[in-house]
Amino acid sequence: MKLNAHIASLPAGYLFAEIGKRVKAYQTAHPDADLIRLGIGDVTRPIAPSVARVFADTALKMGTPEGFHGYAPDYGYNFLIDAIIRADYAPRGVSLKPEEVFISDGAKPDVGNLQELFGADARIAVTDPVYPVYVDSNAMAGRLGSFDGGRWSGLCYLPCTAENGFIPPLPPEHVDVIYLCYPNNPTGTVLTKDQLKVFVDWALKEDALIVYDAAYKAFITEKDIPQSIYEVPGAEKCCIECCSFSKTAGFTGVRCGYMIIPTSVTGTVGNERVSLNRLWQRRMSTKSNGVSYPVQCAAAQVFAPDGHREVMESISYYLNNASVIRTGLEKAGCRCFGGVNSPYVWMQTPDGMKSWDFFDLLLDKAHVVGTPGEGFGPSGEGYFRLTAFNTLEKTKEAVERVTGVL
Amino acid sequence: MKLNAHIASLPAGYLFAEIGKRVKAYQTAHPDADLIRLGIGDVTRPIAPSVARVFADTALKMGTPEGFHGYAPDYGYNFLIDAIIRADYAPRGVSLKPEEVFISDGAKPDVGNLQELFGADARIAVTDPVYPVYVDSNAMAGRLGSFDGGRWSGLCYLPCTAENGFIPPLPPEHVDVIYLCYPNNPTGTVLTKDQLKVFVDWALKEDALIVYDAAYKAFITEKDIPQSIYEVPGAEKCCIECCSFSKTAGFTGVRCGYMIIPTSVTGTVGNERVSLNRLWQRRMSTKSNGVSYPVQCAAAQVFAPDGHREVMESISYYLNNASVIRTGLEKAGCRCFGGVNSPYVWMQTPDGMKSWDFFDLLLDKAHVVGTPGEGFGPSGEGYFRLTAFNTLEKTKEAVERVTGVL
Repeated sequence: MKLNAHIASLPAGYLFAEIGKRVKAYQTAHPDADLIRLGIGDVTRPIAPSVARVFADTALKMGTPEGFHGYAPDYGYNFLIDAIIRADYAPRGVSLKPEEVFISDGAKPDVGNLQELFGADARIAVTDPVYPVYVDSNAMAGRLGSFDGGRWSGLCYLPCTAENGFIPPLPPEHVDVIYLCYPNNPTGTVLTKDQLKVFVDWALKEDALIVYDAAYKAFITEKDIPQSIYEVPGAEKCCIECCSFSKTAGFTGVRCGYMIIPTSVTGTVGNERVSLNRLWQRRMSTKSNGVSYPVQCAAAQVFAPDGHREVMESISYYLNNASVIRTGLEKAGCRCFGGVNSPYVWMQTPDGMKSWDFFDLLLDKAHVVGTPGEGFGPSGEGYFRLTAFNTLEKTKEAVERVTGVL
Repeated sequence: MKLNAHIASLPAGYLFAEIGKRVKAYQTAHPDADLIRLGIGDVTRPIAPSVARVFADTALKMGTPEGFHGYAPDYGYNFLIDAIIRADYAPRGVSLKPEEVFISDGAKPDVGNLQELFGADARIAVTDPVYPVYVDSNAMAGRLGSFDGGRWSGLCYLPCTAENGFIPPLPPEHVDVIYLCYPNNPTGTVLTKDQLKVFVDWALKEDALIVYDAAYKAFITEKDIPQSIYEVPGAEKCCIECCSFSKTAGFTGVRCGYMIIPTSVTGTVGNERVSLNRLWQRRMSTKSNGVSYPVQCAAAQVFAPDGHREVMESISYYLNNASVIRTGLEKAGCRCFGGVNSPYVWMQTPDGMKSWDFFDLLLDKAHVVGTPGEGFGPSGEGYFRLTAFNTLEKTKEAVERVTGVL
């Protein structure tokens, strides 16, 4: 029985699984430690009241002949697709056709599964540090070569550090796919429309695809920061965009996301141009059975006036936490990035400390769980991610504890 | 931008998409035709009242600080895993550890994604006719060679027809994976424990994996038919089992399933033995974010006494429909299979008519939508699938209409 060597030989565990293990071991050894988690990107505030009501109402009606719904359309219900186009894209001057929007159970599955459309020898570029799913999902498909000294031999890394202001350089050679995530996970930094245009222009010239992860777009507060890559002219020919209700509306435990694949995005199979939209349709109709009806109704309510207002209250709450973290750490002399258009604050570790050492230090001395930058890639070494998803009280206390041990 | 040639070159559409297209075209041309659908395997009865109540209660509580749940555990909540082990396996003498059960958003995604664990050159066998997902998901990964004359050059077909009583022969040569689905989709037939043991013994001897799809197990009425492959000794060393709440509890529009991967199932990577359970953990933690909390609560309620009683009422209703179909067609002189331990009746087409011709005939003359056997594989030619998931009234009328045009 021959197995996939690429999955079997993946290095270490998935970052958050490794953190979970270390935290569990610490808790077992110190059962009285009152840990505060500013690590994993899970939200803590309940979903919006009106959204929960719609979710519950439609769930209850699934038990009645009138309200029952069987298999959802493979690519999502039109009522949700239309709401996304109308509320999320039209106001920014982005025009989409319904068949260009695919509803899913989240951006992580989407972004993990999307690489199935790429050729086995497609060359991949990622910003570094990076959300691990882009890398691991391609590694599992055997596209990245071997892992040695913390780097994949076949992966093109685009370093983002304080030195270049977290603006990734263009790939130094041809790649087939570039993953960009803005507002960025893990650094919390953003790119302006002009900075994104450099990538779109390059992708058009090089016949490359940009996978644009906009999962955190609801946190954008600054005016000239685009919420969608399609605000950049030409992006409709070379970009796929992933979005999620997880961070926008606290849906981490509800599960709903969506992916935009314009019909004008094409790639090559031999000498032919092939539509990625068509390939994804085929992939989804073969391997998915759509998303729960009550979940899609709840997601649509996020765009209703009351739902939107409630949802934005939570976003503001988290953004205030981010500000508390950044301000507090900066006062203590730390160098911090992000936290303005993002729930993530990316701090430099004190005295160039290794990020896993800083993780262990904070866990042990401050009882605060963060995420070591090295877990996001080689250029994450020397940095540490703190997230704004805890309560204001716990966030304030965590900042005090962290600054206390610096 | 290099794309996956195997997806791009997949023949025709996914079976049910093709049926949908033909039906839509017919409806457009004949807007007054009152179609009855005995085609796609979607259920029609609402989910059980107590299950809907739990679903709605937990959904509503997601809007409160006390009831909110963020990311679910990657592999499912323990309360649901425990309920599955206790209610679904222990009574049949099958003992499972919690880490051997993986909760998902359905058996179709599970069975479509599972092949990611197999080596690129793993050789695959399927019973023929077959549920298309096993074939298409492996074809997309490039494991099946080329499609020519209705057959994949690299796929091992195990023909199941009236001639061999729908008992598949063993593969004539080594294969790495055999997909078995019992009660079978599309034929509605079953295998006894002794018949399954032949496959388990062969898999153990050949170091092959059996992927056992038990999505229809709730429909088993005969005593000596196993509900789980693990009732067969040795299966815990070579079998993975996929199950779903879709057909058991009408969850096609709710989305919940589960997969059993015993820790003792291993395969090879080079000269090493590797645990499939561990590979699947890695796959799931990288590409999935778990299943909605209210959905998992609803699924657990299926095993509660009231939930179970309600759910079995719907199963009985569908089984009665299946009996109506089979009895009615047999009275009219048709040769039928299945429909006793299954919601599917597999009929031979009259006078050896081609199955897509019979599809068009029934659509045009009887306004009944069924599924042409050829869509399930070469040995499905000359057969036709009718499903028991419509109402009793519509089912009766459909049988009358069908027998009227024979």
